[in-house]
Amino acid sequence: MFVIITYDVGEKRVGKVCKKLREYLDWTQNSVFEGQIQKGKLTKCLSELKKILTEEDSIYIYRIENPNHLRKDVIGQNRSFDRIFL
Amino acid sequence: MFVIITYDVGEKRVGKVCKKLREYLDWTQNSVFEGQIQKGKLTKCLSELKKILTEEDSIYIYRIENPNHLRKDVIGQNRSFDRIFL
Repeated sequence: MFVIITYDVGEKRVGKVCKKLREYLDWTQNSVFEGQIQKGKLTKCLSELKKILTEEDSIYIYRIENPNHLRKDVIGQNRSFDRIFL
Repeated sequence: MFVIITYDVGEKRVGKVCKKLREYLDWTQNSVFEGQIQKGKLTKCLSELKKILTEEDSIYIYRIENPNHLRKDVIGQNRSFDRIFL
């Protein structure tokens, strides 16, 4: 499946959350990660994230089972593209 | 359709971009907006955003034609929920 994960967490935990998400997904922009991931891996990722988070934090997970149902467009800089090819 | 829009823009333009996106979508978290929107309105929104942006800015648009193809989960605080109900 394809997932988009966005986070809004306390400053002290931003680094840890980013590092964890990077293990499973691609960073796209600010506090947004995305990528293809298997269900089991996503469950593992979320379980590990829960250990880092406190009750003031917030993580949003958008799942699209079939990536064909998603269209993605970019206006301006495609930051994830830069990251991969530079 | 359902759209998720994330932005990463220069500090001077954050306010304008937020204000514009609020006219069309719901704020969810940090630099993320989402919502149901008609194709024509989305085109109008993006066209208006382009007038605000400079070449260093970046806007990502994820479109899911049929909202049934999307599953959304929240870990922790559901900020958009708070915003609506408090």
